[in-house]
Amino acid sequence: MPEPILTLTTDFGLADHYAAAMKGVILGICPRARIVDISHQQSAFDILGCAYTVAQAYACFPRKTVHVVVVDPGVGSARRPILMEAAGHYFVAPDNGVLSMIYARQKHRIRRISQERYFRRPVSPTFHGRDIFAPVAAHLAAGVAPARFGPPIRDYLPALPLSERTGDSTWAGRILKIDHFGNVITSFRADEFPNLEGREFSLLAGGCEIGAMARNYAAAPPGEMVAMVGSGGYLEIAIGRDSAARRIACQPGAALELRLR
Amino acid sequence: MPEPILTLTTDFGLADHYAAAMKGVILGICPRARIVDISHQQSAFDILGCAYTVAQAYACFPRKTVHVVVVDPGVGSARRPILMEAAGHYFVAPDNGVLSMIYARQKHRIRRISQERYFRRPVSPTFHGRDIFAPVAAHLAAGVAPARFGPPIRDYLPALPLSERTGDSTWAGRILKIDHFGNVITSFRADEFPNLEGREFSLLAGGCEIGAMARNYAAAPPGEMVAMVGSGGYLEIAIGRDSAARRIACQPGAALELRLR
Amino acid sequence: MPEPILTLTTDFGLADHYAAAMKGVILGICPRARIVDISHQQSAFDILGCAYTVAQAYACFPRKTVHVVVVDPGVGSARRPILMEAAGHYFVAPDNGVLSMIYARQKHRIRRISQERYFRRPVSPTFHGRDIFAPVAAHLAAGVAPARFGPPIRDYLPALPLSERTGDSTWAGRILKIDHFGNVITSFRADEFPNLEGREFSLLAGGCEIGAMARNYAAAPPGEMVAMVGSGGYLEIAIGRDSAARRIACQPGAALELRLR
Repeated sequence: MPEPILTLTTDFGLADHYAAAMKGVILGICPRARIVDISHQQSAFDILGCAYTVAQAYACFPRKTVHVVVVDPGVGSARRPILMEAAGHYFVAPDNGVLSMIYARQKHRIRRISQERYFRRPVSPTFHGRDIFAPVAAHLAAGVAPARFGPPIRDYLPALPLSERTGDSTWAGRILKIDHFGNVITSFRADEFPNLEGREFSLLAGGCEIGAMARNYAAAPPGEMVAMVGSGGYLEIAIGRDSAARRIACQPGAALELRLR
Repeated sequence: MPEPILTLTTDFGLADHYAAAMKGVILGICPRARIVDISHQQSAFDILGCAYTVAQAYACFPRKTVHVVVVDPGVGSARRPILMEAAGHYFVAPDNGVLSMIYARQKHRIRRISQERYFRRPVSPTFHGRDIFAPVAAHLAAGVAPARFGPPIRDYLPALPLSERTGDSTWAGRILKIDHFGNVITSFRADEFPNLEGREFSLLAGGCEIGAMARNYAAAPPGEMVAMVGSGGYLEIAIGRDSAARRIACQPGAALELRLR
Repeated sequence: MPEPILTLTTDFGLADHYAAAMKGVILGICPRARIVDISHQQSAFDILGCAYTVAQAYACFPRKTVHVVVVDPGVGSARRPILMEAAGHYFVAPDNGVLSMIYARQKHRIRRISQERYFRRPVSPTFHGRDIFAPVAAHLAAGVAPARFGPPIRDYLPALPLSERTGDSTWAGRILKIDHFGNVITSFRADEFPNLEGREFSLLAGGCEIGAMARNYAAAPPGEMVAMVGSGGYLEIAIGRDSAARRIACQPGAALELRLR
């Protein structure tokens, strides 16, 4: 039988013991768990960027993987911990939108996690990652059925719209994420704008206008901003061997406009 | 039989091969080892902060875990490598205080690691993590008895005092650690100052005075510094959705005062 | 049967999902794989530093380990993915020099990876780490023979010279890497300059002249730059408890000179 896989996505950083504390708790409950870090450098104030990271990562893992997301500025407040089943995967997270890019597109079932028997006791008011999310995920990975953790709910946070048509040939979108290389990932799905390469278009971002497509980073002319179809299926803005984000000077979440001609 | 767990805490950072070299050596000796990073971003000049990190992390792991700590500015000098058994766990570290927050509170037995047959040869004068600590920990995880590594010692470094009473209602303490979120973790144990929430108190830190308690980060009024019981059982200083450390502007190890009224 | 080990060395950083996407793909193909991060903080513009990191790390792992290196500014261009067998290990990387410090010294066989049946489909033009390197490495770890991935080649990138004699008693070299501690690792192999400790020498680096050896960091006089034999077998420049790189103010790849007297 293959070992169960758990992934972790948090805003804990790497200098403290917080992520490791979760791993210790998981291994205590489910010793066969194989734990994979997605990232511990998410920003608590960038829920959309975190939602993008999780939505991109999960689909590369085998079915039955348990994905734990703890980007949770509301820890201890009224926000609820939730358990989602979608696309054959499991997700354990706060109900603050971090799973919304998945439930906006995939058939899903969401439960409120209420069964305290699966928590680590006592529950710290400041560290639900260790005391609620990690042990719940570990019990799930060890074979406890999702229904055991709490009742289904329908009033979870609605997904944010990523792009919308604003005119005959104009669309409004936003910056989903700026990656490590300075590529600016937009919320425009490439499959909704096929064949952009053969058309006249302009993509407006932070005072800059991009009007050319490239197939990959090596094909982008040095110093010139281009659009390309990113590996996640969204349009992104890049500069050959440089950081587009530094040129555009805008933040995750900022508004974008796409115009076709 | 569950796989043996080893944890790593170092000041090696993540850009070099140093931490991975230790992992390769461990897997060569103990192929079933499950290796978990606590952190590789400790500071060699902040032994107390590292001691806090290890003391917080280990207790979340199952018994029999082997915890390896290599924060070791004295590598190659006279400081001794030690092996500690405490609270059902094993610890392999230099004798420089990094284990002191555990041996100050837990029954323990400490040995000097002297049996060179368990070292990787030749031993580099600058990389004992790879050549001494990693192979010793791997042999221990693979089942070699602690007594085989060297004789018990009693003259290991004494633990630093964390807080002391300085008057009828005043205590001196220090900053144990500033975490990734800018929360300032103090050396005042919450269980020694119970019911602080219902009392008048002031906590003096770097020219600032904190006189209110909050139950969690979400309950801290924006912009106002509060004390709270941290997830590790120590009082910490926080600001709702902001960095307390930036406001207080002081360093790990700095003096604090607590006054009750 | 021991679990197959795969290592990852990339320039993906730790804030995005890129490294985790590779891990998900690997575990989908080879569920028993044990994945170890060497580093995800390599620089795409410092191939030599990356080559050094990989060459240092691999030798600490057990034979049969599969080492995946994705530092690949030419993704999508004409550069070829290659599979190398050397020293009992496997390496999967772009043909851009990142393996050159290994094939310069070890007997090796290099193949061009051409069998698309082992790729993840469709292959993104911007993310070969996920779609080519990860699945090829996972199939290799799962037991597919190297010859199945493509034909042997001989025209891979030649290795860069690391040092050369420029006179009777002078050698030219370069900075291989500046590590996390600010130690400056040179391209002069310590075994080619034995007994340096007993000789008069000067090592010239960025306007500084170093003329003394120390055995380890603790033995380096505070504030004074010294040369020492690093744990990787190369001469390095260090200052006791400080960063030599900050003093020397020069970059990876910069020229060095060694003079014996």
